Amino acid sequence: MLIVKKFGGSSVADKERIFNVARRCVEDYQEGHDVIVVLSAMGKTTDGLIAKAKEINPRASKREMDMLLSTGEQVSVALMAMAMGAMGVPAVSLNAFQVAMHTNRQYSNARLKWIDSERIRMELENRRIVIVTGFQGVNRNDDITTLGRGGSDTTAVALAAALHADKCEIFTDVDGVYTADPRVVPNARKMTEITYDEMLEMASLGAKVLHNRSVELAKKYGVQLVVRSSLNREEGTIVKEDAKMEKMLVSGVAADKNTARISLIGLSDKPGVAFLIFDALAKKGINVDMILQSIGRDGTKDISFTVPGTEAALARETLESNLEMFTAQKIDCEENVAKVSVVGAGMATNPGVAAKMFEALYNANINIRMISTSEIRITVLIDENETDRAVQVVHEIFELASGK
Amino acid sequence: MLIVKKFGGSSVADKERIFNVARRCVEDYQEGHDVIVVLSAMGKTTDGLIAKAKEINPRASKREMDMLLSTGEQVSVALMAMAMGAMGVPAVSLNAFQVAMHTNRQYSNARLKWIDSERIRMELENRRIVIVTGFQGVNRNDDITTLGRGGSDTTAVALAAALHADKCEIFTDVDGVYTADPRVVPNARKMTEITYDEMLEMASLGAKVLHNRSVELAKKYGVQLVVRSSLNREEGTIVKEDAKMEKMLVSGVAADKNTARISLIGLSDKPGVAFLIFDALAKKGINVDMILQSIGRDGTKDISFTVPGTEAALARETLESNLEMFTAQKIDCEENVAKVSVVGAGMATNPGVAAKMFEALYNANINIRMISTSEIRITVLIDENETDRAVQVVHEIFELASGK
Repeated sequence: MLIVKKFGGSSVADKERIFNVARRCVEDYQEGHDVIVVLSAMGKTTDGLIAKAKEINPRASKREMDMLLSTGEQVSVALMAMAMGAMGVPAVSLNAFQVAMHTNRQYSNARLKWIDSERIRMELENRRIVIVTGFQGVNRNDDITTLGRGGSDTTAVALAAALHADKCEIFTDVDGVYTADPRVVPNARKMTEITYDEMLEMASLGAKVLHNRSVELAKKYGVQLVVRSSLNREEGTIVKEDAKMEKMLVSGVAADKNTARISLIGLSDKPGVAFLIFDALAKKGINVDMILQSIGRDGTKDISFTVPGTEAALARETLESNLEMFTAQKIDCEENVAKVSVVGAGMATNPGVAAKMFEALYNANINIRMISTSEIRITVLIDENETDRAVQVVHEIFELASGK
Repeated sequence: MLIVKKFGGSSVADKERIFNVARRCVEDYQEGHDVIVVLSAMGKTTDGLIAKAKEINPRASKREMDMLLSTGEQVSVALMAMAMGAMGVPAVSLNAFQVAMHTNRQYSNARLKWIDSERIRMELENRRIVIVTGFQGVNRNDDITTLGRGGSDTTAVALAAALHADKCEIFTDVDGVYTADPRVVPNARKMTEITYDEMLEMASLGAKVLHNRSVELAKKYGVQLVVRSSLNREEGTIVKEDAKMEKMLVSGVAADKNTARISLIGLSDKPGVAFLIFDALAKKGINVDMILQSIGRDGTKDISFTVPGTEAALARETLESNLEMFTAQKIDCEENVAKVSVVGAGMATNPGVAAKMFEALYNANINIRMISTSEIRITVLIDENETDRAVQVVHEIFELASGK
């Protein structure tokens, strides 16, 4: 079996943890499997490098930032190969050039284009554990790029796809994917399996276990993902296309407090207004979610939408400087809101889910500000200070703890 | 003019020094020159990485050590490009892959084979300052190698040769090459010019300004070297083939305290004995210098030689375990000795130099233990605690301070 195993920066933060990771990889190797390990930079290395760069030049070019940051993973993989060497196991570290991991030209947020699997195959044939730098690639000019947030997950999945690995294990500091955040819902249950689409909805709604790009890639190439803990031997959660539904309408509840609602009031009710607004936001790279447009009245209409809380100020600024162009009378921004969502592939064919969720919130006297739905998700916007209670009552009404 | 400028690790140890180097390079650039900068790892970075590796695996493979250590220079060059960027000057950092600097396969002590100058030429044509990682290369398998001690000097000279640079400036913490160590001889004089061969003899005799491999390479390709200080604007010392002799028999005096003398006593006086001894030492990688063989007497002979003090224990061990094979009766090792040498291209055609040196030492009552000479060098072995005094009286007798 060919297994790709990805460990984050905290899993390789010191000597003890490096050997802990090495042992887990060597176990698979000694059972006869081929093992590819993908690593992030150690602990706070990347933060330290960013601080150094900011000291020298707060507006350093992205090309040079990527050149700088990519050294972090190279240190991790070399030390890991040394650790395995100390255990008497043949291992070889490879950086993005050596693999090679080809990306487009977009520094600091590059997309993988193709992976040359020849070098890795050769090393695996020689029965070596192959340790690859996560997060980085090279573009056509041989310049170093980085893949942006969650980049090492993407590297792992892309390698698993390119080499047709039997599974891709993503090690994190949690046991797997839960029906809700266990800190909020103590009897939340770890899911055994989940579909790619459910995982995507969960991830985009604040369950920060896997980065969406890696899940999208896994779905596209049918890579079986396993999310499991680097701290224990629990089985984790399997992410795959045909995950068992377990007869569940709803798989989990997710919440996202990093949310702000923006409303443009009294827009003139004519075509093109929505385009102008969202085009202006897109040009600033602002992620818009939950768009709601009121029915026109007195020749005007309102448009509300949510943005990540961290992008609210920029969004507001962008819109305020163009209010006239948008024909808006007023802009209204609310930052103390949160999204709570139920996710489940089962709900696509069952109309009662939304009503059941609203019932739970009504019983708990929680006011719903906005509603948005997808095929497998229902999201409501509520007051931020009611988030935990909302997650609890929704988790309760769908009996997610029992896994029935 | 195309100028290659090399700065060591202490010259880029912090933000202030990085900007100091950046300014010196930008000055040349703004005068219209093409500038290539070669950098070592910042300050104690390499030592820190070595310590980390030793903690994980004291016998780490050289391949992984090179993978690890090469990150140090990459951090330096990226930060330097950012510093120049902050000054509004277009600059680009390149690592050994990107250049590319091709070496043989010998990890940790690789030899440069050829340099692809295309990428650098393109960047220079676009009027960018090009900042290259010193000390490192890539072998045919795309694995990272390092060039061993003084490697960044070698990188700079090799780039100067490959790109036909007009000069190659090596910045150090001294003003240039002196007629003797100024800490020992206060009136030592900075040389304006010196030949490659003189520089080679000086360097191999403890004047640690330039590494021999870089000087050999400069000589082979006729690269004009300039040794100068990164701390001030002094002119420095030019190293070139046709350096002015300044009518001097002797250019400088050098001393090396890292020396031990080993003697094998009572060897049987038959052919092949010397071969066995020095072959055994060579196989352990021990550098032997100043070999002296006594005339045979009573069918036996003695062989004495010097080795670097740091290699004395290994040399002794190697020989002791094979004394019978060498037919030696006894081994004798003395570590409190030093080499003092006069170097000068002028002495090749003048027989009086040795006598004059010996006279100075005799007048100072310093006993000579061994003598060795080359075309342009005379070396004596003396007691270590008389080194400084020997350097002073020799410097004096040849009137080196006045530069006559």
